[in-house]
Amino acid sequence: QCDLTGWWENDLGSRMQVSAVDSQGNFTGEYHTAVSSAQKPIQPSPLVGSQHLDEDGQCTFGFTVNWKKFSDSTAVFVGQCFAGDDGDEVLQTSWLLREKVDSLPDDWRATR
Amino acid sequence: QCDLTGWWENDLGSRMQVSAVDSQGNFTGEYHTAVSSAQKPIQPSPLVGSQHLDEDGQCTFGFTVNWKKFSDSTAVFVGQCFAGDDGDEVLQTSWLLREKVDSLPDDWRATR
Amino acid sequence: QCDLTGWWENDLGSRMQVSAVDSQGNFTGEYHTAVSSAQKPIQPSPLVGSQHLDEDGQCTFGFTVNWKKFSDSTAVFVGQCFAGDDGDEVLQTSWLLREKVDSLPDDWRATR
Amino acid sequence: QCDLTGWWENDLGSRMQVSAVDSQGNFTGEYHTAVSSAQKPIQPSPLVGSQHLDEDGQCTFGFTVNWKKFSDSTAVFVGQCFAGDDGDEVLQTSWLLREKVDSLPDDWRATR
Repeated sequence: QCDLTGWWENDLGSRMQVSAVDSQGNFTGEYHTAVSSAQKPIQPSPLVGSQHLDEDGQCTFGFTVNWKKFSDSTAVFVGQCFAGDDGDEVLQTSWLLREKVDSLPDDWRATR
Repeated sequence: QCDLTGWWENDLGSRMQVSAVDSQGNFTGEYHTAVSSAQKPIQPSPLVGSQHLDEDGQCTFGFTVNWKKFSDSTAVFVGQCFAGDDGDEVLQTSWLLREKVDSLPDDWRATR
Repeated sequence: QCDLTGWWENDLGSRMQVSAVDSQGNFTGEYHTAVSSAQKPIQPSPLVGSQHLDEDGQCTFGFTVNWKKFSDSTAVFVGQCFAGDDGDEVLQTSWLLREKVDSLPDDWRATR
Repeated sequence: QCDLTGWWENDLGSRMQVSAVDSQGNFTGEYHTAVSSAQKPIQPSPLVGSQHLDEDGQCTFGFTVNWKKFSDSTAVFVGQCFAGDDGDEVLQTSWLLREKVDSLPDDWRATR
């Protein structure tokens, strides 16, 4: 079964810790990003999310990271667990980063 | 101040209810989607997310919707509140939908 | 039949002119963007693209805009024609904007 | 200087051949995709695009692939050249794939 609990690291060197997943699939954790376009120094940032609890260990999941400790941006990640060649689990994710903009006419460039 | 608590409706007719936002900015709620590419009938689906608590009412936020009641997909939304012309708040969001795929070689087409 | 030839305007006030579409579906044109995050003044920018030539008038298409006249960015658009309620054609598009970054470690934030 | 002319291969095994880039930065070529969600057999597909002609060899570029030979979809790619560790050029790209949908209410799920 897929269980996100624990530490994960991505190709950019960002790391996240997921605390225990509850019976609904909800979880909290902390994201330690290795990259940032903010001015202030990076800090570990809280995340909340939800995963499916499929028996086959290939669940999809999503979570939100609130960068409030050093920026006014928010990121969301969505992905799926896969069993890697060596038996280890691999997470494949896509993300969107929303930066705060001053007004609606700037909305077109707020998300990357 | 931006407060996501309450009911929201988007251009496609999907509606969501956000319960009380806590002091950290975390919230839960229920998403009633008007559109789906799943085979099973649509059902209201749980969401969890997080928002900034800026004083200026233009906060960014994100949330995850777990479609487990009728599919094995997960969606994430990220966006920002804006005060509309008539004083009402408008949410501008972008989203990603992750569908479950059988194996890593199919990962390229899992997200839309 | 769907024919992109002519002038089009989007919700942001950007306009584009598509010259004659050839027998392969290829076309060129000029994009007059209303929005920019570049420092230099906006200028009309060349575009090249390709469309399907389906009989049903609901073709998909894509094109590239080279912003070389005032920036080192490139944008791509992909979309589909639809007949609107009033018989007019409507284009639904999605886009990606690539900004130039200095090195590979910054690649994560180059596209919005 | 960055020159896209030649053969390129991506992580999924898809290959593309770019013919000579003209003095405006425009190019044509052929894309041999290794992956597809279409029913018909994959065939090499024409592409048209545009690149910047910066002196520093780190140009951004974009191109459109018209899958008309076996589907009614269109893809766009946007990216940037980088000099790899071994002196070889590496292309970093993002893409969008537009599938044809029957009507506007299905537009939400047309792009991945």
